[in-house]
This record gives sequence, C-alpha cells and structure tokens, in this order.
Amino acid sequence: MDRTLEETYDGLMADTKEIADLHHVSEILEWDQEVMMPPRGIEARSRQVALIAGVMHQRSTDPRRGNWIAELEARSGELNDEQKAVLREIKRDYEMSTKLPPDLVQEISRTTSIAHNEWIKSRAQKDFSIFAPHLETIVGLKKRVAEIWGYAETPYDALLNAYEPGATTASIGKRLGELREKLVPWVEKIAAAPAPRRDFLTKNFPIEQQKKLARAAMEVIGFNTDGGRLDIAVHPFCTGTGGDVRLTTRYFENEPFASFYGVLHEAGHGLYEQGLREDALGTPLGWSSTMAIHESQSRMWENEIGRSRAFLKFFESRLQEAYPTQLSGVSIDELYAAINHVEPSLIRVEADEVTYGLHIALRFEIERDLLSGELSVSDLPAAWNKKVEEYLGITPKDDAEGCLQDVHWSIGALGYFPSYALGSLNAAQFFAKLREDVGDVDGKIEAGDFGEILEWLHTNIHRHGRRYLPDELVEHVTGKPPAADDFMTYVAEKFGPIYGISS
Amino acid sequence: MDRTLEETYDGLMADTKEIADLHHVSEILEWDQEVMMPPRGIEARSRQVALIAGVMHQRSTDPRRGNWIAELEARSGELNDEQKAVLREIKRDYEMSTKLPPDLVQEISRTTSIAHNEWIKSRAQKDFSIFAPHLETIVGLKKRVAEIWGYAETPYDALLNAYEPGATTASIGKRLGELREKLVPWVEKIAAAPAPRRDFLTKNFPIEQQKKLARAAMEVIGFNTDGGRLDIAVHPFCTGTGGDVRLTTRYFENEPFASFYGVLHEAGHGLYEQGLREDALGTPLGWSSTMAIHESQSRMWENEIGRSRAFLKFFESRLQEAYPTQLSGVSIDELYAAINHVEPSLIRVEADEVTYGLHIALRFEIERDLLSGELSVSDLPAAWNKKVEEYLGITPKDDAEGCLQDVHWSIGALGYFPSYALGSLNAAQFFAKLREDVGDVDGKIEAGDFGEILEWLHTNIHRHGRRYLPDELVEHVTGKPPAADDFMTYVAEKFGPIYGISS
Repeated sequence: MDRTLEETYDGLMADTKEIADLHHVSEILEWDQEVMMPPRGIEARSRQVALIAGVMHQRSTDPRRGNWIAELEARSGELNDEQKAVLREIKRDYEMSTKLPPDLVQEISRTTSIAHNEWIKSRAQKDFSIFAPHLETIVGLKKRVAEIWGYAETPYDALLNAYEPGATTASIGKRLGELREKLVPWVEKIAAAPAPRRDFLTKNFPIEQQKKLARAAMEVIGFNTDGGRLDIAVHPFCTGTGGDVRLTTRYFENEPFASFYGVLHEAGHGLYEQGLREDALGTPLGWSSTMAIHESQSRMWENEIGRSRAFLKFFESRLQEAYPTQLSGVSIDELYAAINHVEPSLIRVEADEVTYGLHIALRFEIERDLLSGELSVSDLPAAWNKKVEEYLGITPKDDAEGCLQDVHWSIGALGYFPSYALGSLNAAQFFAKLREDVGDVDGKIEAGDFGEILEWLHTNIHRHGRRYLPDELVEHVTGKPPAADDFMTYVAEKFGPIYGISS
Repeated sequence: MDRTLEETYDGLMADTKEIADLHHVSEILEWDQEVMMPPRGIEARSRQVALIAGVMHQRSTDPRRGNWIAELEARSGELNDEQKAVLREIKRDYEMSTKLPPDLVQEISRTTSIAHNEWIKSRAQKDFSIFAPHLETIVGLKKRVAEIWGYAETPYDALLNAYEPGATTASIGKRLGELREKLVPWVEKIAAAPAPRRDFLTKNFPIEQQKKLARAAMEVIGFNTDGGRLDIAVHPFCTGTGGDVRLTTRYFENEPFASFYGVLHEAGHGLYEQGLREDALGTPLGWSSTMAIHESQSRMWENEIGRSRAFLKFFESRLQEAYPTQLSGVSIDELYAAINHVEPSLIRVEADEVTYGLHIALRFEIERDLLSGELSVSDLPAAWNKKVEEYLGITPKDDAEGCLQDVHWSIGALGYFPSYALGSLNAAQFFAKLREDVGDVDGKIEAGDFGEILEWLHTNIHRHGRRYLPDELVEHVTGKPPAADDFMTYVAEKFGPIYGISS
C-alpha cells in the first residue's frame, strides 16, 4: 500500500472504531436498563437509546464511508488478505444500511411496532387470526427487502445472508435437513426409553449457593472478572467486548442447574469476546463473528464441556458441599443423567440440546416456504402442528404453544432462527476437532484444567474475528465443510449410554 | 407567538432536549465507570466518553442553534417570562461554547492535562515550585478566556459568571467578606472551648448497619427509589435527573456518620433532581440551577435538617438498635455535640460546616488577587499560609496541606470554589424562610414527617429550574438579597449552646 491508500484504510478503520464505540455505548445503556436502571428511568432511557442509534446510523451511512470503500475496492489488489476481509465486512454492512430507502425502513418499523403488539394479544388470546394479517404484511415487506438487498437463488437467501453471510437457503436446508433426518429417529427412541431419576432437582436450592457455584464455574473456565461482570437480569444475556464483557443470569430456588448452565452458556459467549484480538477491537478483525459462531462457543461450554461427566466429576465435591441434603444419595451417574435429560417439548426456549435442533428445523422450513410462497400465512398453524407431530411426536393444544410462541416474526426477524441450530452443529464440529488437537480433553476437564482448551478456542476461533465468513471459518478450523455428522456422533456417544440406545 | 415563532421555539426546545439526553448518556457512562465497570474497561470507556462529548459539542455549537437564538432574540417581546428565561440560559451556554476559538480550547486542554500531572507530582513532593510555572500559564490562559467571554469590572467576573451567572467579584466578595468577618471570632471562641466527647465514634460500626441506616434516612426524607438508586463509589456523588437519579457513598467501619451524612447530602441533591418539573426536563425550566443552589439543597438536608437535634431524636431508636454496644451510655446531647464538632483544620474537604466557609473565603481572595495581578503565583504559598493562620488560627506544615491540596487549579477550574460556600449561605437563608413558612419544622423533623418540608422545596426552589439566576432565586424565595446573616444566626443558635458561647 502506498501512503494514500494506507491513509484511506486508516481513515476507514478509525471511523469504524468510532461507530463500534457508539455501539458499545448503546450496549451499556441497554445493560444498565436491564440490570441497574430504576423503573422510572425507562422513558428517558428509550429516548437516549434511540438518539444514539440515530447518531450511529448517521455515522454508518455517511457517504464518506462509501467513498473510502469505493477507493479501497478499486485498488483491492494492493490489500492483503486480512485487509480484503475487513473491506468485505465493512462493505456489506454499509450496503445493507444504505440500500434500503428510508420510506421502507420506516414502513417496516411502523408495521413491526403494531405487529408486535398484535402478536402479544394474539398469543394471549390463543387466536392466530389476530396476528395473521400483520405477519402477511411483514412477509411482503421482507420480500421487498430481499429484492433490494439481492440474492442468488431465492428471496429467503437475502434474509439469511443478513444474519449468516455466505449462507443460503440451499446450504442451510441441506445441513438442517441432514440433522432432522438423523435426529428424529433418535428422539423417538429416547422418548420411548425410561426417563432418568429427576426427583431431587425440585428440592429447594438456596440462591446464595447457586450464586457461589455459578461464579466458581465462570471463573474456573477462564472468564476474567478484571474485564467482566456477572449480574442478574430477567432475560439472561452477554454484552460488551474486549476489556468489558458482562454476563447476566437469573436464579430460581427449585432450578439449581438453570443458573449454573445459564452462566456457563453466557460465559462461553464472554470468553469469545474476551478472546478477540485486542489490537483490532472495533474493526472486523476484532469483532466476533455471526451468531452461528457465537452460539457455538456458548453451547460448547454449556453442553459439550459443562454437561459432560468429566465436568460434573470436577464439580462434584463443590456441588455436594453446596447442597449436602438436596443431593444426598444422588450418584454422579444419576446427576449426569438428570441434567442431560431429553424430552420432546413444545416450547423452543425450554428444549434440551437434542430436541432443540428440530424446533429450529421446522421454523426454517416454514420461513423458507412462506418466503417462496409455497406456504400461505393462513395455512401456517396447520403446517406448524403437522411438523411438530412429525419431528417431536407431540401436539400443541393451541397456537400459543405452537406457532405463536416466539417473538421473532412479530419484530420482522425472519431468517434469524437457523443460527441457533447452526450454533449447536458448529459447537460439535469444533469440539470434535478440539478433541483431536488438544488430547485427553476429558482428563483436563475433570482436573479443572481449562487453559489449553481455552487457548485452542482463542487461537483457532476467537482471534480470527470476522476474517472468514462463518461457514469458511468452520471449514478452515475443522478441515471439512459444515455438516451435521459431528453433532450426531456427539448425540450418539453421549445420549446412547444414558438412555441405553445403540445407534 | 405566531406559528412561525412557535415553531422556532419548539425546534430549539426539541434540539435542546436531545443535547440534554446526550448529557445524560455521558452521566450514565461515568456513573457506570465509577460504580460498575470492571477495571479493564477503562480504555474503551475513556474513548466512549470523549466520543459522546464530541457529539455533544458538535450539537451544542451547531450554527442552526445560533440562528434559532437570533430569531427569538429579535422577537423577544413576543415571548413570555419563562420563555425569556429559557432563551437567556440557552444563549449564554451557546455563546460560552462558541466564542472561544478552538485553538485556545485545545491549548487549555493541553496545558491543564500537563499541569494536572505536575500538580500531582508537586503535591507528592510537597514542592510548589514544580506546579508554579503551570499555574502561571493557566492564569494567563484564563485571563484570555475572560477577555473573550467579557466582564463588567474585572476578568475574574467572567470566570465566576461561568459557574454562577449574574454573580460578580464584587457581589461574592461582599458576601464572603461579611461571612469571614463574622465567622473568624466565632471559630476562635469555639476552638478555645472544651471539645465535646467523641471517643465512641472511633469504635467499630458494622458496614451492614451503616448501609441500613443510610438507606432508611434517604428513604424517609423522600428520595424515591422507583426513580433512583444508592450505590458505592470511591468519591461520593449524585448524578442523573428526573426519573433516574443516582447517589453514591462509601462506608468506613470507624466512621459511621460519614456515610450517614454523606447519603443525606447526596440525597439532598437527589431530591432536587427528582423535584424538577417533569414537563420541562431537558430544558432550562426543568434543569437544576447552579452549584450554589444545588449545594444549598444537599447541605440543608445534611446540616440544617440531618445534624439537628430533632433529626437525631427521630433516628435515636434506630441508631441505638443498630449500634447497641457502640452507643451504649451515649446520651442524645453527647451524640448531637459529637456529630456537630467544630475544629479548625487544614484540609478543606475534611472541614466541618462552620469552618468550611473560611477555607473558601481564602481561596476566593487568592483567585481574585491572582487574576487581578495583585498576587503573583510565586507569592501564593506565603499568602495562603498567612490567611490560614489569620482565619483558622493554624499553620500548614507544608504546601501539600496548604495551597497544593485541591485539584481545581490544576484542571483550570478557577472561579469554582465560591459556589461551595454560597451553597451553605443559601441553605441557611432558604431554611430560615422555610421555617417561617412551614411552621414547627423541628416538631415535623422529630416526627419524621418531611412531606411539607420537601413540598416547600419543590414548590419554592426545585420547580423553578433555571427560571431565575441563582441570586435572583434566593431573593425571590426569601424576599431579601443573598447575604450571610441567616447563616451566622444559624451558627450562633446551634453552636452557641453546644460550646457554651453567647453571641
């Protein structure tokens, strides 16, 4: 790069970092709102958040950025691979922000604001017909968005691409289709097997003890509290990045493992954010990848690691010390089976790690068919229920526990669901490779020695930032294309023994 | 107002509210930094705060605001009194922000940044000569600022006016001169009188009990926790406004009343912010007045009310319950005398409410003489020590406990000190009037019935926002010009009996 090109690149980086800083200001305002703000602060806070969003939008869509991007594009031959990736990421964001006409953006905002309220009513009254016309409008608007953003084969591609760049209806359809085909028979067998003992989980587990254990788990896996916090919020989340990463959870006296695994999950997100390249924070190289990658990190720490027998063994003495009467007479095998209990259920957010993917597969299929026109909004409830029966063997008694259960469609977030399942598949695929590379992973977990595991994740995943597209990253790290087989192997090896099923 | 003028006025109001929202975003970022942020977050936070300050500055100095102001000025005859006050406040802020050339602003910023570091060094080494040349430069820069801002009689007027609009060197000099003259003999007499018993205050007072009492005091005087919080910070402060007002304090096991009165003080600030006109929040009519008024509120709740015998009586049973052994055998009179102990001391921030004003009088005189050229920087330490001896009867053993003790000059905050003392004088002047208007104030305090007192403050002070200049407000509320006599009456009536002194 000559001096001029370098100046352009540096100018774009400095500007990008400032937009990132504004993003993190928003995150702090929102964290504060959920965790600290007194109730009467909501009115001013809403204005503040909207104001910062406005400043961010203005900065993100400033034509100056467009000029920088065009200049770098014209001379992209002079950029190295990292710089090319940075340009690719910034260009996509810029185009997605600038391509949509303000009229359409406003129309979507207005429509979803109404639709969200109608969805709440619709769900409360268990009457899909209230929400249906609004969903119809949203699907129409999303089709217009897709036409403007552009797509390779089908409009749904454009929506998926907004969440998982590079992914298509075909690529996700193939992966989730494979998952569904292999998973359904497994879920059938598990549902037919005798359920493990779980009586002790409904006892009273003091919240102070839960807090102690959750914090211990978070710290022992490597979450750095000099650069992070753990607090309480109604809806658990992880926010922030770099030197200021904040986790939240909630505690219920009769659900001791909800907070324990909830914190491990959020800490998994947190370790990703703490593991980003410090010198690149605020730019695509120091920015976490899509949700399909982020969720791979949280789920790996929660499920592959946290819900392993080795992790339970490592924590056994602390658990027994914290809950001497509650866990009295409960063997490690019983505890292991109980916290890994699988049971088909109707509500996605309560699903276990095995059935979860089926909840997503059906949503993906329905979104795909709504966008292609193969499914009409009026036929949605019937299609939903048919799939639930087919995949999970159970039937919603009404649409509130069926197609009205999730908020996503009401706020226009079509194309968002798949990432949840891709996160599980990626977790298994990454973890299989991690097992190969690190060696004696179970032994290390049982010894509470997470250093090498975390370092592997830092090196192979976290420190790439957005250098690769999510599917590229999976292939780059694991040496094979994203698939569902590692996840199925994980399911077979873990749940086969628990439920006495041979694959 | 016709439609066009109304549109201009409304446009200016909407813009002003957005700038206020940005201000409150900064406040949340700073609160979070002091109270919540993990240590490694500091680097990003500093950038975020600077970024929001930049956005605020840009918005505050936007020529569009200048046009609105000019348009309203040209037709000010059509504005009502409230609108005229709003225009006066907005115009002053706009002019102060826009008049200084960016070069000078940068030079001040650069100079004070260095000077602050040199002041730290200077204080640590107890060597004024390190800081002296930097203070010299700062005084020079402040003179240039004063010339640009303009003044009636002397450059120091311009600096005072930045903190207390309408106040002048002459008006403040008269008031603080009167205070000093009357106070010095009082302090002499008190210093000569036998000190009250204070041995019990050095016992161990568990922090949990301190927290409970401080919170109880805060709530009982009317601080609304639906619209506020109390947390811990190294340097206690109050921030926020309207429905989100946040107080902080700190706890030391051997200083039980530091947190108790610290919280009452901050809650006094907080009640002011919570008492602003909701419909005018973010505009001058819903914005608290200067520090001379704000401190009058905090000091009134802390001193006039909190340190009264009536308040102690009201809290006596809770204090005895919280500290049964520590306060065993301590009578209410002994406690009252102990928490109102007066003793000349060298450090301003540790001074009691009687001697405090003398610390400020001497700083005011020195600033005034530095600005007028009557005092040179090199003669400052000698002048300081002479005044301390004259006013307080004690001598600093070095400049660290003399003229190097405060941060203010090193950051260029010349003209800021007087407001601290004006706050005490205003508190006494307001409280004397409150006593007249409300009636049986001591009885109400002793009964824990603060409703009428708070309502009086809301009605007479809080709900005016910046409708009046600070001195105007004092006169408007109390019916007489700002003076020192009510404060002296308060001193005589309260401390005379404690120290057996008749005035």
